[in-house]
Amino acid sequence: MISLVPVEGLGEVVPGDEIADLVLGAAQLEDWDVLVVTQKIVSKAEGRLAPIDPADPDARRELVLSESTRVLRDRDGLVISETSHGFVCANAGVDFSNVDDGWAALLPVDPDRSARHIRDALRARTGLTIGVIVSDTFGRAWRNGLTDVAIGCAGIAAVVDLRGTQDANGRPLSVTEVCIADEIASAAELAKGKASGVPAVIVRGVDRRWFRESSVKAEVVRPHQLDLFR
Amino acid sequence: MISLVPVEGLGEVVPGDEIADLVLGAAQLEDWDVLVVTQKIVSKAEGRLAPIDPADPDARRELVLSESTRVLRDRDGLVISETSHGFVCANAGVDFSNVDDGWAALLPVDPDRSARHIRDALRARTGLTIGVIVSDTFGRAWRNGLTDVAIGCAGIAAVVDLRGTQDANGRPLSVTEVCIADEIASAAELAKGKASGVPAVIVRGVDRRWFRESSVKAEVVRPHQLDLFR
Repeated sequence: MISLVPVEGLGEVVPGDEIADLVLGAAQLEDWDVLVVTQKIVSKAEGRLAPIDPADPDARRELVLSESTRVLRDRDGLVISETSHGFVCANAGVDFSNVDDGWAALLPVDPDRSARHIRDALRARTGLTIGVIVSDTFGRAWRNGLTDVAIGCAGIAAVVDLRGTQDANGRPLSVTEVCIADEIASAAELAKGKASGVPAVIVRGVDRRWFRESSVKAEVVRPHQLDLFR
Repeated sequence: MISLVPVEGLGEVVPGDEIADLVLGAAQLEDWDVLVVTQKIVSKAEGRLAPIDPADPDARRELVLSESTRVLRDRDGLVISETSHGFVCANAGVDFSNVDDGWAALLPVDPDRSARHIRDALRARTGLTIGVIVSDTFGRAWRNGLTDVAIGCAGIAAVVDLRGTQDANGRPLSVTEVCIADEIASAAELAKGKASGVPAVIVRGVDRRWFRESSVKAEVVRPHQLDLFR
């Protein structure tokens, strides 16, 4: 059985905060937990904030384009672009909600490093084996509605390779590589609710074989030249 | 807190089986549970099986094309196409693994109807308020690794519209429509494991406001003319 436990009472996160300390002050972690934290509190803790007039659409657009390395679609005020990380998402991941007036939150410079930083701090303080995922809310091609995905991870596999495993009939499985980091991020989203301000969720009971060093950038971001839809 | 409980001991599913009865024989459902069942057992129960020589790549390809209404990409033996349901996925959702030799499993004709059928049967037998999601494992654009998504649902919202909700600072949220059906399907996948043969998971503790009549076809499938990536 897997449990999704919201971490409540983290309080407002400000630049310089150590997220590991905030979480440990609010929740009891256990060995083999995966901690999922939203991009927004990571960006706030890291000071990844840009001044912006929220009422000025040109300023918003300029900020989005400055965070984009390549624009895929640009229609009716919606920019879908590629970020320096290789993510394809709306508004280059710039977040104008749940930030103080006059500010926007940018994606962390290196979300895998952000996850490692939190994981290392948790490990140093507790000695526990913990996975950490930094999540954000992205749209998709072909399907309506947003889902939470992993933009960074540490200590937990991003993609689990089931190649060579046999199905229940003893034949090799044709479906092979599962992005469990995205599935864990999506699962966590169910437990936090969008407007309730819960920015961290503990996912407890994940398969222990999935705990290892990993990286969203290395395992999940599909290289441009291998992508059929870019 | 949300719990993900695998339903073990369902046994081999054969055409004509009533999935609701199999689940009720193996697990104790509660009010407000969401039951996630894989496409494969739904297709088997509904007899959506096609004879195929698994060693003949031409036969496999022919079957995939016959299940496709439109081919988006066709390279190196990988066909990414649109199905009659409007899903965009590899091999038109045809499944060659975990099926008896000489057979492939096709997608249900109407997976929302399949979910409704299971939900109605569960309700008739128990009187409980239950949501049902039929899940399948799809790839995505831009990101490596497969994730489980909802191909049909009943009694639980596919997309939750948070438009008009305010963020923690009292401003309207810019991120609005969340595909909780896909997030629930992904969460369930974490609890079943690919090769272990667990084809159903109970998701317990989901927000009760999300229980309503819904449909993946109506809410999640993005109409062709609104899709920027087809």
